[in-house]
Amino acid sequence: MHKKQGKQTIVFEKSPCIIGSYSVVGPKEGKGNFAKYFNEIIDNDLYGCNSYEKAERKFLIRAINMAIASAKLENEEIDALICGDLMNQIISSSFAARHLQIPFLGVFGACSTMVESLILGACMIEGGFCEHIACATGSHFSSAEKQFRYPLELGTQRPPTSQWTVTGAGCSVIASKGSDIAITKATIGKVTDWNVSDVNNMGGVMAPAAMETLKAFFEDTHTKPSDYDLIITGDLGKLGSEVLMDLMEYNGFNLRTNYNDCGQMIFNNKQKVFQGGSGCGCIATVLNSYIIERFKKGTLNNCIAVATGALLSTLSSQQGDSIPAVAHLVLLERRKNDF
Amino acid sequence: MHKKQGKQTIVFEKSPCIIGSYSVVGPKEGKGNFAKYFNEIIDNDLYGCNSYEKAERKFLIRAINMAIASAKLENEEIDALICGDLMNQIISSSFAARHLQIPFLGVFGACSTMVESLILGACMIEGGFCEHIACATGSHFSSAEKQFRYPLELGTQRPPTSQWTVTGAGCSVIASKGSDIAITKATIGKVTDWNVSDVNNMGGVMAPAAMETLKAFFEDTHTKPSDYDLIITGDLGKLGSEVLMDLMEYNGFNLRTNYNDCGQMIFNNKQKVFQGGSGCGCIATVLNSYIIERFKKGTLNNCIAVATGALLSTLSSQQGDSIPAVAHLVLLERRKNDF
Repeated sequence: MHKKQGKQTIVFEKSPCIIGSYSVVGPKEGKGNFAKYFNEIIDNDLYGCNSYEKAERKFLIRAINMAIASAKLENEEIDALICGDLMNQIISSSFAARHLQIPFLGVFGACSTMVESLILGACMIEGGFCEHIACATGSHFSSAEKQFRYPLELGTQRPPTSQWTVTGAGCSVIASKGSDIAITKATIGKVTDWNVSDVNNMGGVMAPAAMETLKAFFEDTHTKPSDYDLIITGDLGKLGSEVLMDLMEYNGFNLRTNYNDCGQMIFNNKQKVFQGGSGCGCIATVLNSYIIERFKKGTLNNCIAVATGALLSTLSSQQGDSIPAVAHLVLLERRKNDF
Repeated sequence: MHKKQGKQTIVFEKSPCIIGSYSVVGPKEGKGNFAKYFNEIIDNDLYGCNSYEKAERKFLIRAINMAIASAKLENEEIDALICGDLMNQIISSSFAARHLQIPFLGVFGACSTMVESLILGACMIEGGFCEHIACATGSHFSSAEKQFRYPLELGTQRPPTSQWTVTGAGCSVIASKGSDIAITKATIGKVTDWNVSDVNNMGGVMAPAAMETLKAFFEDTHTKPSDYDLIITGDLGKLGSEVLMDLMEYNGFNLRTNYNDCGQMIFNNKQKVFQGGSGCGCIATVLNSYIIERFKKGTLNNCIAVATGALLSTLSSQQGDSIPAVAHLVLLERRKNDF
């Protein structure tokens, strides 16, 4: 009866599929590798607002509104908005929800938020409790730097292990039918902490969490990496991706042929972002542009998406704690019979 | 097919029920009106820790571990922990999840968290995706004051509209069978903002959200307040409860006979807490002690629980925003056939 496989993996037997998606990014992301895939590039990262936090909120509202429109729905037809972000008390999401007037479930999984919201949304759709759900998240380089690290005005030198928080937002609208891009499996991650305390090495913090969740998924489903077209992680960056490939190899799984990381892919080598992109907006914008586009074009029939979140706060770090991380996984597959 | 009633209300036709619960509170709460109902009272609010934030985490871990034990389960048998708190980046929850090693879904709904987690958990149980879920939240007076208002050392005078954040945590373990205390309906709230910007009047901020959600529930279900044994809100406090009763009366619903507020009930009149208790821990500890106990004793056959959250951050307030609020609702009912 229970739609579970193994210990940690949920199986969605019929319904949840992505019927609408949208990605909107800032100017730097718009000069990166996925420029032609993003739905919209905003040429000023303040987006006409008087603070970066308000700009972050506006990116999120734009992504949600346009994803709903791309699904040919009105906001009133969305039963729930599952949304979170990096700001304290997820204000970007809750103020976006105030504007949108859609029943709101706030989530926090740091940069794992996009996949966390897809998992919860898929459960609510497959269970028959909702007809349409918007799953969204976003981040902003300048609001994240200010909150988690240093004021931009300080001009602090960035260490070589650092990443660049993506400015942008992505939203997926999911429903029980209407598309052949289905969410077929999901693995909810456990919080993993390998005692890394360097707030400038998020890839190192999150790679063990990605490894634990991927390992749980492959063991639960009795599959291996080569059974899938593509495996992506959210924002491990270059160093974190290398760590993950090594960790997986140590556990008997070869990720070296069909794996990539959104943080590694999103910017190009000339953009001086060291290890690559990060932030909730990283996998949110790449998933809702490049990945969805490849499904639509038929060059991708399945994709494991693992979003990784570093669950740090300035306060826990100041109180001497190391940085825990979590990784959530969804398997996206083409499912013809639901189309 | 869709398990919905009206616009915003979900109907759980068979399974989700509360099979375990636990409440642990601090010394002040232990001198209040529910002293004999709480499972455990800790006589020092630092709980043996060297910071209030670490104490908050310990309260949460204790509540979750003991709720699981009260359901006669082991932690390994819990498929997911749905948990959130008031701290930036919900560190109390994520560090608790690190300790507990249960797959973790972080949520943020401010003081609406207990009910938000019950709604999501109930969907995952009723949908057949999980067998056992722990839904938990907690708060701590001293960590909340420090983060949201002033350092305690300042000895700031508290205004008459203020409330006192509850120190404590509560956890409910839900499953598809094993108890006759069922979650039968749920209403996911919209974010409501009536332009209140006084961070010392949370009751005034949250009452309109409670009104909107209760109104949606009564309209969706074609019922009225007198159809239920008891209606509780989370932490509107005395003033906020009065505002809610007035707002409901204005909308044609009489709450004056069978309604109370956990914030109003939790402390007694001698405790100098002005409008009463607040914080995620308020409804979490009252629901998982007094309310569950009344169900078990047979003096309660159904109860509407509405948890209200003020979605403020110091940053949004400093940037001139008013305070949005959200309220989520569950209907708890005795359901004999599932026992």
